[in-house]
Amino acid sequence: MEYLELNATSDSFVAAVDDMWVLNATYLVFYTQAGFCMLEAGVVRAKNAKSIIIKSIIDTAIGSLIFWAIGFAISFGANGNFFMGLSQFFLIGYTNLTFFAYQWAFSATSITIVSGSLAERVHINSCLIYTVVMSAIIYPFAAHWVWAQSGWLRKIGTNGIIDFSGGIVVHMVGGAVGLVGTYIVGPRIGRFDSESGKPKPLPGHSITLSTLGAFIIWYGSYGFNTGSTLGISGGRIEVASRSAVTMTITATASCATTLLAIKVYSGKYDVAKSVNGLLGGLVASSASCSMIEPWGAFVIGCVAAFVYLGSSHLLLKKRIDDPLDNGPIHYSCGVWGALAVGLFATEKDVNKILILRNPTHTYGLFTGGGIEQLGVQLLGVAVVTLWCVVTATILFYLMRKFNVLRIDPTRELMGIDMDAGGPAYPNFQNI
Amino acid sequence: MEYLELNATSDSFVAAVDDMWVLNATYLVFYTQAGFCMLEAGVVRAKNAKSIIIKSIIDTAIGSLIFWAIGFAISFGANGNFFMGLSQFFLIGYTNLTFFAYQWAFSATSITIVSGSLAERVHINSCLIYTVVMSAIIYPFAAHWVWAQSGWLRKIGTNGIIDFSGGIVVHMVGGAVGLVGTYIVGPRIGRFDSESGKPKPLPGHSITLSTLGAFIIWYGSYGFNTGSTLGISGGRIEVASRSAVTMTITATASCATTLLAIKVYSGKYDVAKSVNGLLGGLVASSASCSMIEPWGAFVIGCVAAFVYLGSSHLLLKKRIDDPLDNGPIHYSCGVWGALAVGLFATEKDVNKILILRNPTHTYGLFTGGGIEQLGVQLLGVAVVTLWCVVTATILFYLMRKFNVLRIDPTRELMGIDMDAGGPAYPNFQNI
Amino acid sequence: MEYLELNATSDSFVAAVDDMWVLNATYLVFYTQAGFCMLEAGVVRAKNAKSIIIKSIIDTAIGSLIFWAIGFAISFGANGNFFMGLSQFFLIGYTNLTFFAYQWAFSATSITIVSGSLAERVHINSCLIYTVVMSAIIYPFAAHWVWAQSGWLRKIGTNGIIDFSGGIVVHMVGGAVGLVGTYIVGPRIGRFDSESGKPKPLPGHSITLSTLGAFIIWYGSYGFNTGSTLGISGGRIEVASRSAVTMTITATASCATTLLAIKVYSGKYDVAKSVNGLLGGLVASSASCSMIEPWGAFVIGCVAAFVYLGSSHLLLKKRIDDPLDNGPIHYSCGVWGALAVGLFATEKDVNKILILRNPTHTYGLFTGGGIEQLGVQLLGVAVVTLWCVVTATILFYLMRKFNVLRIDPTRELMGIDMDAGGPAYPNFQNI
Repeated sequence: MEYLELNATSDSFVAAVDDMWVLNATYLVFYTQAGFCMLEAGVVRAKNAKSIIIKSIIDTAIGSLIFWAIGFAISFGANGNFFMGLSQFFLIGYTNLTFFAYQWAFSATSITIVSGSLAERVHINSCLIYTVVMSAIIYPFAAHWVWAQSGWLRKIGTNGIIDFSGGIVVHMVGGAVGLVGTYIVGPRIGRFDSESGKPKPLPGHSITLSTLGAFIIWYGSYGFNTGSTLGISGGRIEVASRSAVTMTITATASCATTLLAIKVYSGKYDVAKSVNGLLGGLVASSASCSMIEPWGAFVIGCVAAFVYLGSSHLLLKKRIDDPLDNGPIHYSCGVWGALAVGLFATEKDVNKILILRNPTHTYGLFTGGGIEQLGVQLLGVAVVTLWCVVTATILFYLMRKFNVLRIDPTRELMGIDMDAGGPAYPNFQNI
Repeated sequence: MEYLELNATSDSFVAAVDDMWVLNATYLVFYTQAGFCMLEAGVVRAKNAKSIIIKSIIDTAIGSLIFWAIGFAISFGANGNFFMGLSQFFLIGYTNLTFFAYQWAFSATSITIVSGSLAERVHINSCLIYTVVMSAIIYPFAAHWVWAQSGWLRKIGTNGIIDFSGGIVVHMVGGAVGLVGTYIVGPRIGRFDSESGKPKPLPGHSITLSTLGAFIIWYGSYGFNTGSTLGISGGRIEVASRSAVTMTITATASCATTLLAIKVYSGKYDVAKSVNGLLGGLVASSASCSMIEPWGAFVIGCVAAFVYLGSSHLLLKKRIDDPLDNGPIHYSCGVWGALAVGLFATEKDVNKILILRNPTHTYGLFTGGGIEQLGVQLLGVAVVTLWCVVTATILFYLMRKFNVLRIDPTRELMGIDMDAGGPAYPNFQNI
Repeated sequence: MEYLELNATSDSFVAAVDDMWVLNATYLVFYTQAGFCMLEAGVVRAKNAKSIIIKSIIDTAIGSLIFWAIGFAISFGANGNFFMGLSQFFLIGYTNLTFFAYQWAFSATSITIVSGSLAERVHINSCLIYTVVMSAIIYPFAAHWVWAQSGWLRKIGTNGIIDFSGGIVVHMVGGAVGLVGTYIVGPRIGRFDSESGKPKPLPGHSITLSTLGAFIIWYGSYGFNTGSTLGISGGRIEVASRSAVTMTITATASCATTLLAIKVYSGKYDVAKSVNGLLGGLVASSASCSMIEPWGAFVIGCVAAFVYLGSSHLLLKKRIDDPLDNGPIHYSCGVWGALAVGLFATEKDVNKILILRNPTHTYGLFTGGGIEQLGVQLLGVAVVTLWCVVTATILFYLMRKFNVLRIDPTRELMGIDMDAGGPAYPNFQNI
């Protein structure tokens, strides 16, 4: 994200090529909307497939419009202070449309994560409300603090906080808001045995669909994680190549570890969880992918698998029902990825990425850079978590209070699709 | 489309990068074939899923070959007069393969639109016939008139007609031919109550599939609408960024407006129509995306929603059964987008786009450019509509006369898939 | 693949743009994993959908890690001799991460082909074993011999063997290994009538899914077949454009020929086989796409259709059950494409591609270049086939001997998904 300034001042063929890189990446990031929609649809039961799609469409369409109108100005508008941007609402007076488009696609990704956590038991209407709040307030402030030049988390310590591609801003924020939502909404009927409290599986209606979604997210993540160089000139293509390679190693290592760990533990293969392991790896690579060696990427991925599995297990123990495991995937693995910067970032790569910040830099603990950056990352994680938990708690608490959050049990049992114009698959009988 | 000449004369690294941009866009446009195929498959009933796929494959495979052999020469072949190109059939003697590839993908898009309009009640064979006629005659002439340097619609008025990315040539043509086809074929059995004449819903068999298709089309539309700069050098990257941003605003505004309008009107959310609203917005942005401000894009999108909904309503009132609403989406929103150029195009952007035409330009009515361009756009819309209606009427009338159009009622009721090697989902029972 | 050296020595903006081209292509090639997964899932019966997905995930995740650790070093590691690379395991000391990423995606494609051939009747565990062997040994050696500068097949004859985009290395290898596997495993229960020996159809559970998969593979093949220029500078963009155009012609010609041949022969349209014809065309274009004229591409495609259909017919006659027809598609059409280089390659284009090899070149038999290159290609095909057959025979024979290959008949009849955590579609009743 450091390269923004370079782009802004140069006006040449080189800058055009840099923008071309970012635009192609933007398209990929927007395409992850298809991935999230299919993933979410596949993981819910057939009776709720249509309603989860309409939520996906609401957060994509309305969230995008709100971010254009309000969110971007708060994130990156001119004349910003440490806390927020203050101008260029509706892009008025803003000219770098490439940068806007890329940030726009990021915000859409963060917002769409929330709908998964609330699947199968909330009013479709509620999606309108949290989409507006997420895209106008919760996401933009976090983005400003971490990414805008004047953001306060970028000023702490030697380097400031480092979040190369949104592990904190996009994944942690989306995951945390969803987690608060799922906690306040409560579990789906039938998710926990009413006597023993033990979880009972409510398997999704189409593993092919959810796997497709995950593969699309993987594909789109190349735009997400490598487009953040904001160009290819000035050595940035090497940063991009490194990011592509390390992201793929982290993701496949996390996927393979999840798959094998479950096989060893239970004797069975589990497609849904393996796919989640892949996603957790993609998330864990977001913050750090540009600054690590392949071996670091491998370790981050292996650990991410256990971060995901452990968090998922913990939620069930606490009787919190997160239908897509979005909390474990996006929040927990996002946190792990953010901390991994402070553990695995190499001096050489941090210097390359932070070319415009202080001339001296700290880097990862395991790569000889001391503990400072890890501390900064921890602080950033804590601040962003606090921000999300406070705002989301107010938001969902108010929604619950005004009774626009959870649908009544009869309709939950029948499926929300009754409110969305009938069944998703009218030619087939649901069982 | 104005940049063609620049490309043809330069021979350097810059030109190579420009071609790289266009090639990547070409891949995206070809990928919309997947989107259209899934959209069409999802919107028909399970008993016709296989047959709509085979039609999609026929128009893709055979249409592409015909356009390579004949269509491109008529559209863009050398030594063309005002009416048609006259040489370079089979690409013989033609060297700009990048430009060809891009135009090729456009033609495939236009042709595949037709199959949706004819869904669930025509012979698979008929698809062979109209595919050949569309790709050899109907589409290429329209493309020549609007886009080729010698095309006559490009000569009228100060600017000539403006169709940046195929709102007229691709969407209106595909939509109009399909609309004529659907009118001549007549409605599907059971679509209108035999006594009251009121429409009865025949919902598609998989909303997940059709939504996926729409998302893929959205993704591919970035290639469609921003690749039309034909390069990134000479300031064209800014045109591309603007197009990406305005296209996304128009599409999401149209989607959100459709979704909310239906919710307000009927109290329900409607996934299928909301998705169509998204598509209508993408279509409406095609002609104008490079020449408008974000606020214009937003207005165009909001209006597109009502253009789509109104046209769809009108068709049903006239008892015309367009299974995918392709007429309302591609024709009506295409017309609206073409006129929007004459309403919202800004002076600055028109000057940038039409760098090679007259040094003085007219522009949008609402942006202070007077009424001329609106008149030119209207004339172009009328001409292209007339061309499509006349040729398509002859085509489908002859097909009906020689009894190769509509299947017999028994097979329609049983499903066309019986002619395509059995059911699409042999492991599941259709109801 | 000839351009590798150019990239390695230049260090400039031009090189960065070249790498950008390759990275974008890499993303497309990785995305074909989604295509193969959906294709395979759609072609099997619903009771095996989940298990084929887990196999796809295993070969993607674990195969990628093994290729990073071992395979790439054998293929392209420094200090290689004629037979194998000998260093840079785990990428240690290797810096061209762009080239690695691209080759990585290729290896993943080859490996994933095998799982299709073994569908519906082998242990999921077996996939772990052959994935490791494929990605550590079978694929890397073939890649070294054909593509590495020191590879021995690159030294024979005037030009050495030519495989522009992996028709031999990726498709033939994947297809041949799968074919040996499917032969040793034996047919699925019920595939051949126990008395007459005639094949009985076991149609896949979702034609929409398999078609989607094929369309995604088509899209990804643009990265596969045009990214192999390894850049766009120095005239390579024209090679890329030519490849995109000829690949599309070959694929659509093969698809259309398959579709029409079956229609003429049987009176019916066959979606599944038409889709396979498209895939066969993509495969057939891989080795030669950059060196042929459009007419050559057309002929290659038409012939590919019969190569596919003939091979498929032959397999059934020999009672070999290849569930996805991967042998006919990837091996047979791969062989045909490899030979097509020796038949259709033009002098001009071969000179452009082989800029770094001998100054004098041979080219295609039909384009006046004599018979030498055809002989070289034949030799290469024979060598690679022999390599795959020998290694795969040992591999699958040992697996059969140690009883880790085929599942027992009861579980085969019930569906392998019972070992993968339950049905793929728990809300629908399988029939």
